[in-house]
Amino acid sequence: MITLDLIKTLAIKNDKKIVFIVIDGLGGAVHPSVGKTELEVANHPNLDNLAKESLCGVAIPVDYGITPGSGPGHLALFGYDPIKYMIGRGILEVLGLGMELQENDLAFRGNFATIDKNGVVVDRRAGRLPTEETVRLIDKIQKSVKKIDDVEIVLKAGKEHRFAGIFRHSKLVETITENDPHKERNKPHEIIPTVNTEEAQFTAKIVNKFISEVKGLLKDEPKANYVLLRGFAKYPNIPKMQEVYKLTPVAIAVYPMYKGIAKVVGMEVIDGCETIEDEIKKLAELFSKPYDFYYLHIKDTDKLGEDGNFEGKVKKIEEIDKFIPQILALQPDVLVITGDHSTPAVTKGHSWHPVPVLIWSRTIPTSVKNTVERFTEKEFSCGMLGHIYMTKIILLSMAYAFKLDKYGA
Amino acid sequence: MITLDLIKTLAIKNDKKIVFIVIDGLGGAVHPSVGKTELEVANHPNLDNLAKESLCGVAIPVDYGITPGSGPGHLALFGYDPIKYMIGRGILEVLGLGMELQENDLAFRGNFATIDKNGVVVDRRAGRLPTEETVRLIDKIQKSVKKIDDVEIVLKAGKEHRFAGIFRHSKLVETITENDPHKERNKPHEIIPTVNTEEAQFTAKIVNKFISEVKGLLKDEPKANYVLLRGFAKYPNIPKMQEVYKLTPVAIAVYPMYKGIAKVVGMEVIDGCETIEDEIKKLAELFSKPYDFYYLHIKDTDKLGEDGNFEGKVKKIEEIDKFIPQILALQPDVLVITGDHSTPAVTKGHSWHPVPVLIWSRTIPTSVKNTVERFTEKEFSCGMLGHIYMTKIILLSMAYAFKLDKYGA
Repeated sequence: MITLDLIKTLAIKNDKKIVFIVIDGLGGAVHPSVGKTELEVANHPNLDNLAKESLCGVAIPVDYGITPGSGPGHLALFGYDPIKYMIGRGILEVLGLGMELQENDLAFRGNFATIDKNGVVVDRRAGRLPTEETVRLIDKIQKSVKKIDDVEIVLKAGKEHRFAGIFRHSKLVETITENDPHKERNKPHEIIPTVNTEEAQFTAKIVNKFISEVKGLLKDEPKANYVLLRGFAKYPNIPKMQEVYKLTPVAIAVYPMYKGIAKVVGMEVIDGCETIEDEIKKLAELFSKPYDFYYLHIKDTDKLGEDGNFEGKVKKIEEIDKFIPQILALQPDVLVITGDHSTPAVTKGHSWHPVPVLIWSRTIPTSVKNTVERFTEKEFSCGMLGHIYMTKIILLSMAYAFKLDKYGA
Repeated sequence: MITLDLIKTLAIKNDKKIVFIVIDGLGGAVHPSVGKTELEVANHPNLDNLAKESLCGVAIPVDYGITPGSGPGHLALFGYDPIKYMIGRGILEVLGLGMELQENDLAFRGNFATIDKNGVVVDRRAGRLPTEETVRLIDKIQKSVKKIDDVEIVLKAGKEHRFAGIFRHSKLVETITENDPHKERNKPHEIIPTVNTEEAQFTAKIVNKFISEVKGLLKDEPKANYVLLRGFAKYPNIPKMQEVYKLTPVAIAVYPMYKGIAKVVGMEVIDGCETIEDEIKKLAELFSKPYDFYYLHIKDTDKLGEDGNFEGKVKKIEEIDKFIPQILALQPDVLVITGDHSTPAVTKGHSWHPVPVLIWSRTIPTSVKNTVERFTEKEFSCGMLGHIYMTKIILLSMAYAFKLDKYGA
């Protein structure tokens, strides 16, 4: 089996440009009331025409039957085994809120909660505290609790009762328990080390001290008088794309979480895009710069799938289709169009379905013309690329960009 | 790569019912004198209609070009890597004879043999002793050799000169040699430990003592005056389906070996079925019970393939096809129809050919309609499911029954 270490020895730096258009939740499924998938119903002539001269297939993000989160899906896209490499829950939360992560960080997610006078958790969500209240309280805590001993603390409010945070210190580890009892009518747990190391003891001590200080600050709050912390996760130790693939990658995304994941694998991240139009414009702008891997993330398809909005997802695909000529006009050497996972309207959430993937190259044809007729799950399932694990896409894109040397003599 | 430990963390218990119809040796191959496969010749309208609204593909039991035995085929069906997990030869023999296995058992298979006055093996099969003779001799041995030291002995006659047996004691191990010299005109080997542990020494001592006692008992037999033992195998240490998948599985089978394999992976095993009709009736009966995984094994297709009986296998497939409406009438949530391996009449035995697999779900469509037209090897090879390793089938069936949680955030 190929490893990142082997790829390192094969990767070649050249000036060919690879573009990855990642349409989040792209894959769909047959909706019982329609009898077709979103991609089958949508009118997307540009994608269809491109598919006719591309290598088309379907990609399995993690494994058959396994529904991936955004972390595993993206890691697979960038060629990292999503079972070997994990982005912890706390890290994703912090990334999702657009917080700046550093290599020594221990991230977590938190809830405001209500405890009674005996210290029993009576509401794990503090009555679903309004977001403005969470913003006010996080601000209050952040102002008085900047450090615990020499561990820096960074907090940010999320939606409703939720927030995320970072403990910043080189000695911190993720091998500690949570204080969240997960069921109401229980007392919060004390945070204890799950392994017997000095680092774990140090981490548990710092986190317990933090909780106790926050509890003191919140003691007069009617509802949000306690915090429950979970999902402790260290900054993931993932080899950078520069190192593995000798690429100079750049990420164009609207949502913080995807920018964050891109940063974790070593991409330069571009801010300031709000719409797909912004993103395409930014891609064009950056095309003269010395990047050779462009990751462009489109979120809306996933959100519409999650909402179960079949028609909305169809419309969004049609909207995305209109941008294809602008992308081709940039004359990328290799263009990949795929998703990080499927989000069919019928499952109202991420699903295990394979994701259509198209690989097009300007330099040499990637496939026999008209092997497929349309950009759909059914056609791509019988495409020349076949059914592949998602981690293989980047290798193929590099091959078509002549960025992989011969293996062995 | 996905592991059983990871699956454990994703498995969700719910009341959706998965049915696995395992048609033994289902896959065929083109017969030179017919120009078609068994499935292509057979008239099976119910399977064809079901295939039109199912996810269809072909499954590779162990690996490309590898012909699996029944053990590996079934382990793969139930999601166990058939290379990592093995059911030893002695265990399969014992299961095939319908013997009751316990967790401490060391199983083996044996032959009656003829030795001359110098102790040289002159006939490894004692002139292919008639089965009745084997039954008589096993009865005689069993009556006088119930125990060696405190190791319990259980024996059962097989066909002709063959028998199987169990040594029952917690200290026994399989790391010992065999006494079978495998070639005639040699003396039987002494059984010795293959590793230097107390348990292996103990096991070798017990088995040598057993052989010596049996030799004494048989000394006046004209032909069957000795026993050759091989295939020593411990009860396999395979995690149970309840533990890995949180399933409550039940097995419906006619033949002891398949009941035995099902028991090894934790299934409850139903006795009393003699025909396919019995099995389907039993399935219906059990459908109101709180099982959520029904394994139904149909043997005859394999036997006919082994006999090289192309026409017989065709007829059997047509017979099985008639039961499909009864199975669908039970309204399973997910229905899988496949085999544990192929047994083409042309190879007169198990073969390496991929096995057609169909996954149908009542809850959400599994595929675009009419992706395949018929239930055949050719059509399924181009089905939307593609070519998959057999271990993946159970994961997909669980996904369609919403029994797998999202992996990662």
